[in-house]
Amino acid sequence: MTDNVSMTELQLATRNHGMPVEALHYPITPVGLHYLLIHYDIPVIDPAIWRLRLDGLVRKPIQYSLEELRRLSSTTRAVTMECAGNGRALLEPRPASQPWLLEAVGTGEWTGVPLATVLSEAGVAYGAVDVVFTGADRGIEGGTEQNYQRSLPAQQAMSTDAILAYELNGQPLPVQHGFPLRLVVPGWYGMTNVKWLNRITVLSEQFTGYQNEVAYRFRQDASETGEPVSRMVPRSLLIPPGIPDFFSRVRTLRAGICEVVGRAWSGFAPVVAIEVSVDGGRNWHEAELDESGTELGRWQRWHFVWNAMPGTYQLCCRATDGAGYRQPVTPEWNLGGYANNAVQQVPVTVTE
Amino acid sequence: MTDNVSMTELQLATRNHGMPVEALHYPITPVGLHYLLIHYDIPVIDPAIWRLRLDGLVRKPIQYSLEELRRLSSTTRAVTMECAGNGRALLEPRPASQPWLLEAVGTGEWTGVPLATVLSEAGVAYGAVDVVFTGADRGIEGGTEQNYQRSLPAQQAMSTDAILAYELNGQPLPVQHGFPLRLVVPGWYGMTNVKWLNRITVLSEQFTGYQNEVAYRFRQDASETGEPVSRMVPRSLLIPPGIPDFFSRVRTLRAGICEVVGRAWSGFAPVVAIEVSVDGGRNWHEAELDESGTELGRWQRWHFVWNAMPGTYQLCCRATDGAGYRQPVTPEWNLGGYANNAVQQVPVTVTE
Repeated sequence: MTDNVSMTELQLATRNHGMPVEALHYPITPVGLHYLLIHYDIPVIDPAIWRLRLDGLVRKPIQYSLEELRRLSSTTRAVTMECAGNGRALLEPRPASQPWLLEAVGTGEWTGVPLATVLSEAGVAYGAVDVVFTGADRGIEGGTEQNYQRSLPAQQAMSTDAILAYELNGQPLPVQHGFPLRLVVPGWYGMTNVKWLNRITVLSEQFTGYQNEVAYRFRQDASETGEPVSRMVPRSLLIPPGIPDFFSRVRTLRAGICEVVGRAWSGFAPVVAIEVSVDGGRNWHEAELDESGTELGRWQRWHFVWNAMPGTYQLCCRATDGAGYRQPVTPEWNLGGYANNAVQQVPVTVTE
Repeated sequence: MTDNVSMTELQLATRNHGMPVEALHYPITPVGLHYLLIHYDIPVIDPAIWRLRLDGLVRKPIQYSLEELRRLSSTTRAVTMECAGNGRALLEPRPASQPWLLEAVGTGEWTGVPLATVLSEAGVAYGAVDVVFTGADRGIEGGTEQNYQRSLPAQQAMSTDAILAYELNGQPLPVQHGFPLRLVVPGWYGMTNVKWLNRITVLSEQFTGYQNEVAYRFRQDASETGEPVSRMVPRSLLIPPGIPDFFSRVRTLRAGICEVVGRAWSGFAPVVAIEVSVDGGRNWHEAELDESGTELGRWQRWHFVWNAMPGTYQLCCRATDGAGYRQPVTPEWNLGGYANNAVQQVPVTVTE
């Protein structure tokens, strides 16, 4: 790992929020512990004048006030959300962006209107290719002034279990999570879940906006077109046992039986196997999945009983999902630093 | 500014939370945007078995359940809380600890029992010197395993307007802010406000714990005893105008009249004057304080009307408090990187 994190990266790290990894304890991440990546600034929105507009290739352009959305049938779902850049700062060389280690994750209980409901009210017309979601947040990226925008393929948008969420954990959506409305697409990386949403536009052609065409793509160099970043690859994390040193965060644990607890998720299929290593990934032992993962895109608890003898250890865990994807021990590099799901490494010293 | 932030510093920056500076917009910081410094891990506490114990040099050792505390007369107060290390990463050389730039602040509306109530119920005995506050969070610091502990002088503890808070912004105290109980001392830096509080001990001698004797002291080198860090020195921050570039955070603003808005605070006395500079601190202009600051330890809104002409600018603001302290333009260094209240520098490009 290179040690020359720049002040530019640091000023992103100090304003964006990771989930302290011990918060894996909570099945639903408390508000204020869920990760946050704010591309530009948090906009100030007056809910009384805010509207959600649906336009473009629809039979009936339509707009909703927040009250009108709240009168539609609602749904509530626990969704694990992870930043596509989680793990970026563990890559070498480190791509220049928000320098996440492993903490860009959280699970929220989102309540809102199914996306399919409003798309069907507006009536997506024949020939729809992409559906663009526009947020109120505005900034400059890649030299271009823009509102944050992301698209989904029209078929995906219509058939998906996506939610237009106006509540998080039973409370009005916090400003930092997109008040008054946020798109939540279970299983997809965080950039999909457009915050401060105020417009949904159906296009008859492919969307060419910055976040789809330039930013979130798997590329080895800038000249490549690359594949789009979409669903979360499997990852597991464990709650570091013992107690930390304040500055180094290195852990000390008393010898004895230790229940190592963690959570695992994948956007492709539920996780079907977890293994634990105490020697940095050389030898692996089967751990116990406590939840079967009936809901795609929600993390699953697991545990492993470790008889910790005095010594120094490197704890790791790795998930395999039902689609056959498994976490690697060493990272795979790409230009944007996306989807690095190499296993977590937790150094622990066990004392008498 | 040195650019070699270490991975050790980065792993603190990614788990601790700064307040994105545009959240200065809110007089009361929403939960989840208030800054957070977690020394060790967030402990998991069962409120049903949790107790607050008062012991040591008291006439009647006493303990309270959370329900018993909630039955006592409560008080609510907006308190601005700032980490003593705010501004640390702008020092050169940079002290090795949590690398805050300027975002380690927030204002919460705290509800709880006055500290004076429970001290008077227990009856502080003659000869009391210090009162020690112990949290449930445990870790290693300076080579010593410890629970987080801080003391106040007994006179200070008895006469202060400190609160034992069980609510923040009208909600049960979030786990990350010290659930179920936190000490809140208006005007003092964050380290005073012990989270996950479970014990208050009155001593007949001076407390010699790590956080009082070693960590939070103004020193030029480790051999010095140094003065203790206590109250917040004055600081003002402004909401960066215009829109940001995602990576560099550099601001672009359209020419015209721009209302620059910010907040200012001091733990010594209310802020009495704010000045703004658009040239990095060479020339200063008087800004308007919108709040008189009747409550010590609560930030005050201010604004400045700027006729922004095309060009490049360096926006700064500086506060002077009623005790006569004023923010410096250049930092004053100390070993721990505490209380660096040198003025904020916000580069802005104004376009036609």
